[in-house]
Amino acid sequence: MLRLLSVLTLLQVALGSSSLLEPRKFSLVARGTNLDGSLPTYKNPNASIEDRINDLLPRMTLEEKVAQLIQGDIDGWMNTANPLDNTLVFNQSGLFRTCTDNLMYIGYQMPYEKLTFALTVGQTYLMENTTLGIPAMFQSEGLHGFTDNGTIFPSPIGLAASFNPALLSSVSNIIAMEAEGLGYSELFAPVLDMSRELRWGRVEENYGEDPFLTGEMGLAYVTGLQTGTRRNVTAGGSGGIRKRMAATCKHFVAYGSPMTGLNVAPVAGSERDLRTIYLPAFQRACSEALAIMTAYSAYDAVPLRDEWQFPYFVTSDAGSVDLLISQHKTCATRECAAQMALENGLQGEMGGGSYTYLTLPDQVAAGTVNESYIDEAVKFLLRTKFTLGLFESKLIHIYSTTRLFTRVKILLQMEEEAIVLLENHNNLLPLSPNIGSVALIGPQANRVTFGDYVFFNASLNGITPLAGFQEFLANVSSSTKINFAQGCELWSNDQSGFEEAISAAQASDVAIVMVDQTLLWTPGTNATTGEHVDLSSLDLVGAQLPLVEAIVNTGKPTVVIFVSGKPVSEPWIQAHASAVIQQFYPGELVFGTTPIFYNYLNGMRPVSPGFIEDNGTLDFGHQYVLNSPVPIWSFGHGLSYTTFNYTDLTLNGKEVVQVYLSAFVSSVVTPVQKLVGFQKINLAAGASQTVSIEVQSSQLAVWNLAKPIAFAQTNLTVTA
Amino acid sequence: MLRLLSVLTLLQVALGSSSLLEPRKFSLVARGTNLDGSLPTYKNPNASIEDRINDLLPRMTLEEKVAQLIQGDIDGWMNTANPLDNTLVFNQSGLFRTCTDNLMYIGYQMPYEKLTFALTVGQTYLMENTTLGIPAMFQSEGLHGFTDNGTIFPSPIGLAASFNPALLSSVSNIIAMEAEGLGYSELFAPVLDMSRELRWGRVEENYGEDPFLTGEMGLAYVTGLQTGTRRNVTAGGSGGIRKRMAATCKHFVAYGSPMTGLNVAPVAGSERDLRTIYLPAFQRACSEALAIMTAYSAYDAVPLRDEWQFPYFVTSDAGSVDLLISQHKTCATRECAAQMALENGLQGEMGGGSYTYLTLPDQVAAGTVNESYIDEAVKFLLRTKFTLGLFESKLIHIYSTTRLFTRVKILLQMEEEAIVLLENHNNLLPLSPNIGSVALIGPQANRVTFGDYVFFNASLNGITPLAGFQEFLANVSSSTKINFAQGCELWSNDQSGFEEAISAAQASDVAIVMVDQTLLWTPGTNATTGEHVDLSSLDLVGAQLPLVEAIVNTGKPTVVIFVSGKPVSEPWIQAHASAVIQQFYPGELVFGTTPIFYNYLNGMRPVSPGFIEDNGTLDFGHQYVLNSPVPIWSFGHGLSYTTFNYTDLTLNGKEVVQVYLSAFVSSVVTPVQKLVGFQKINLAAGASQTVSIEVQSSQLAVWNLAKPIAFAQTNLTVTA
Repeated sequence: MLRLLSVLTLLQVALGSSSLLEPRKFSLVARGTNLDGSLPTYKNPNASIEDRINDLLPRMTLEEKVAQLIQGDIDGWMNTANPLDNTLVFNQSGLFRTCTDNLMYIGYQMPYEKLTFALTVGQTYLMENTTLGIPAMFQSEGLHGFTDNGTIFPSPIGLAASFNPALLSSVSNIIAMEAEGLGYSELFAPVLDMSRELRWGRVEENYGEDPFLTGEMGLAYVTGLQTGTRRNVTAGGSGGIRKRMAATCKHFVAYGSPMTGLNVAPVAGSERDLRTIYLPAFQRACSEALAIMTAYSAYDAVPLRDEWQFPYFVTSDAGSVDLLISQHKTCATRECAAQMALENGLQGEMGGGSYTYLTLPDQVAAGTVNESYIDEAVKFLLRTKFTLGLFESKLIHIYSTTRLFTRVKILLQMEEEAIVLLENHNNLLPLSPNIGSVALIGPQANRVTFGDYVFFNASLNGITPLAGFQEFLANVSSSTKINFAQGCELWSNDQSGFEEAISAAQASDVAIVMVDQTLLWTPGTNATTGEHVDLSSLDLVGAQLPLVEAIVNTGKPTVVIFVSGKPVSEPWIQAHASAVIQQFYPGELVFGTTPIFYNYLNGMRPVSPGFIEDNGTLDFGHQYVLNSPVPIWSFGHGLSYTTFNYTDLTLNGKEVVQVYLSAFVSSVVTPVQKLVGFQKINLAAGASQTVSIEVQSSQLAVWNLAKPIAFAQTNLTVTA
Repeated sequence: MLRLLSVLTLLQVALGSSSLLEPRKFSLVARGTNLDGSLPTYKNPNASIEDRINDLLPRMTLEEKVAQLIQGDIDGWMNTANPLDNTLVFNQSGLFRTCTDNLMYIGYQMPYEKLTFALTVGQTYLMENTTLGIPAMFQSEGLHGFTDNGTIFPSPIGLAASFNPALLSSVSNIIAMEAEGLGYSELFAPVLDMSRELRWGRVEENYGEDPFLTGEMGLAYVTGLQTGTRRNVTAGGSGGIRKRMAATCKHFVAYGSPMTGLNVAPVAGSERDLRTIYLPAFQRACSEALAIMTAYSAYDAVPLRDEWQFPYFVTSDAGSVDLLISQHKTCATRECAAQMALENGLQGEMGGGSYTYLTLPDQVAAGTVNESYIDEAVKFLLRTKFTLGLFESKLIHIYSTTRLFTRVKILLQMEEEAIVLLENHNNLLPLSPNIGSVALIGPQANRVTFGDYVFFNASLNGITPLAGFQEFLANVSSSTKINFAQGCELWSNDQSGFEEAISAAQASDVAIVMVDQTLLWTPGTNATTGEHVDLSSLDLVGAQLPLVEAIVNTGKPTVVIFVSGKPVSEPWIQAHASAVIQQFYPGELVFGTTPIFYNYLNGMRPVSPGFIEDNGTLDFGHQYVLNSPVPIWSFGHGLSYTTFNYTDLTLNGKEVVQVYLSAFVSSVVTPVQKLVGFQKINLAAGASQTVSIEVQSSQLAVWNLAKPIAFAQTNLTVTA
């Protein structure tokens, strides 16, 4: 049964160390051939997956089975300390020791030549020098681009803001092509957590706050990532089911709503919340995904494996099984933690901990763990491997598949569609290409910011807004003058650069101020967002708001651009800037509401907010007294340079047509509104188009007191 | 079955209007006597309560039964507009109409003479001029004092800070005596919500954040309120069960954890949260309570009536049944709302809405509601009335029982014990009675602040800190000079009074600054706390922090006193003031942390907070980045003027000895620590005492996956 476990650690720890590995026994009896010399079924690419599993499992020793469930690490046989090192040597004894494992974390940056050398050595050893020849799955990160120097796309929150699932499928297909070309077979993406607690540091990794949009974008990502066949693998083998790459839907489940906003904190929620808020996106996006990863946070278990008929494997997050001992205190020993994880449905134990699954063979011998749990777990894992065609896929690395110029068009389109125009007072935007001068101001104006889950030096592939602007102007032979001034740092109250910035604005026709949060993992910066960097406030940090105020107060038309991983809550900017743009963290090509979700339950929100006037006068309200619980820009908000008229639900200009559902009355309390459909269209000025949006019947269901979910019988089509 | 309903409104609305009442049919057949002329069992004070119920119910018409379940209002026959009006007239037709109801809201202030006139008219009509002569229950508020000019004690959060249940029982006994003397039979207290979301405006009404302390203080309050026998009622009647006053445990349940901190917002929580956090205090305090009131907020229903064997009635909150239609949208019609409320266990419908229960007779006739639900409901309600002895209690009003000087000692002791000494750097406190001069500064220094749930002009019975100080000094013939300056308002950024305040401090040996929140319901003020006044921040409002900074910066030793309904989060004050005192809202005699609860679940809190230095330098941390999620003063913190040494768990000086339990390992995630026992002691300097604290076995139980709660077999005694 697939239960929800309670499990945590920090990503650094995930990078693990093989020194924690104990030496293991390994049986060398010849079981990888048949006695009559014929090809074993499990090695037959044309046999069905279930037949191959059932043929292989009885051939395996207990130790080999357990080894399938444990994540090794490339640092077991390679020196991964320096990402620029290209020495093609491996540690022989480390290889023998590490390559008893059959999941392999390769989340490091290194030159492609060294990487392919390392993977070839490892996989060749496993497939040719072990009795059964079971290949490893090579795993890495890929939230918004393959992390080892692959093409970097906008952060997931920006990908979602595109409202363009087809485009996202193209993006994830590129990510899969780049990773597969180097020999990887599993990426830890997409993240379907939903950012409903905006103080949390991992907001940027998700597709926003909404279950429906998250499900649709997740499905698009999984589909694009998995679709296709690995090089050298027959498309029609294994019963016709082939996937290029294993997507890993994470973090299962409700991880995006940690109490107090602190990463890994428990989530307060009922089974109703689980069924109606947290599970639907996983159910929509992941029924075909080849893997699921659990969350660090605690939530009461609901058995779902049988209910969902999910056939593939479920892995822990890094080090999380040990957290049952150290943090959640539901176990006192590694043996207990291993048993609890295994029996509750974890088929893979990541590194970053003490490898509790190493206790399983002895526990089987002692009778405390039933080997049938291990057999069941191995079957789930082998099903993923066979589906990928790993047994018949000799590693042939085609690393010329990464960073191809032909993919620039998709990258550029996604970067443009991820940008949200929040305010455009007096139609200041778009700026004329013939404008005389532009002041480019702010700590983000000459910085490449990619957000979390990119690796060492990825930003070297990016272009700063300042450089991009200059290149653009040169390309179009524009005479527009750029007056650049940084103004302040991202992480300081120092205002000594204001004077220069004010002068730049005063000397220009328009000012653009690019502000916001720093990212994690950048040496020399102070992070205000990212994994385990959680905020108490969504305000701008340090001198940035005063900088915006100083520029706006010059009287020059001012565009404020938030280059941020999460929403920024500065009502003064909304009210006083001429235009406001939310760029999120961009990809490598483009220069570039606060804490309540829109789909709150009926009965939740009274509306008598207060505020502080510019002159300091206090205007008292009742909800947050001198503040407001209402988002500045709600979910789904975004302007265009065109005006759209919805006439008789007929639409006249690029726009995301969105369909929301509200129940007039239900037997249980339901959200005031919820997104149930959307379509992005692009109309020429003056044109019109009929948009037909199908609403899935499951979106019309209510989790009522009778349980389980009662589905309506037919789909609804909304025409606008 | 007792289910948890979803229900809201504002207190103002609760004061209702009889104009909403429709005319009702009333049967006048003689059913209040026996055919043979003997006394009906239900009128026999010595019969058992169950016999009396079973005798009465069959005599009642459907309309009479329904009338038992509906809360009328004194404004149906009295003019309640002017609290000072003492006109002894009533509206005859209003009386006939209103007094078909048998619950009566009398939550108004009026002169005692008029009040007793009104209650006598109403009850006499019901008992002598109706067929069955069923008396009404007269209901009002009483969170920290009888609201119609009774003795006002500190706000409940301060009552809890006393950690003195025996003293609280004495307090609630006084409240009951004052209310009963005027003819009341039910008070809407105690509140057991638990303040775990400090942005919420109703924090002051609760006994704090902890389930155990809330349960113990709740039990003390219920016991003190109910213990005793109403005047003129035989103590030994009705099977020996008699109570003076019906306590009403509210708001059932989990109302104190509204999502986003906004009043009446839904609560996110599982059945585990319900069983382990929210229910225990109700279970501990209310098994003998004569009534329970439901909450406005939504939470998934769990049937508890049978499990708990709770024999008394459950009422809605004001207007909350209608909210099923208007806010929660689980019903479209009044008929549906009435049926949902009745069938889910609401035996009383308060005013403030449209009186949906008026639809019940027609619904029974139409076959949509089964009369057996109504019969069951009436039984619960009658059980409460019989237990109070209302049928044999002619109203004899002894309003000389209110505000007796003999109760001052209890009042004074509770006010002293409710005050918490948070910081006392360099043992500045206590001040010498011979100190030359004291500056008394701040917007609370010459103001009486009682908190919410007191009525019109209650503060006239209080004494301001300034007046109290002067009276005290006169009484002890002290020559200490008081230099008073208000400094600023509670609700403004205006700093024009700072100069006077700074001069007062400079001219004095020590400065006392009294700051904080205003209360609701005070004309001319802006509320920052109270029912439906919710905050986004726990900082001081307006000019108050700058005032404290200005006074501290004079270099004079400065004592800061928070006169507040909830914790104030100002780390600067903790670090820079010489002493800090939390007074909460005091009672009428004495002048006188942040948003995480201490008993969080294992796995919740990493600790790398950041901060902003006094000179503006930003020191970045990871949890809240420039802020800290750790409370400044945690639950249970409080200093004394004596130093206590716990030696070998032996104690040496007034101190609350507290026992906390941590589980080393459990099968499910448990809190890092939880209060399981406490005892308040008072030791002379140099003395020592052995304290033995019994831990209830239920405190050792864990709500494990097997459900229901498994209790340990024996109690544990901790000796310190």
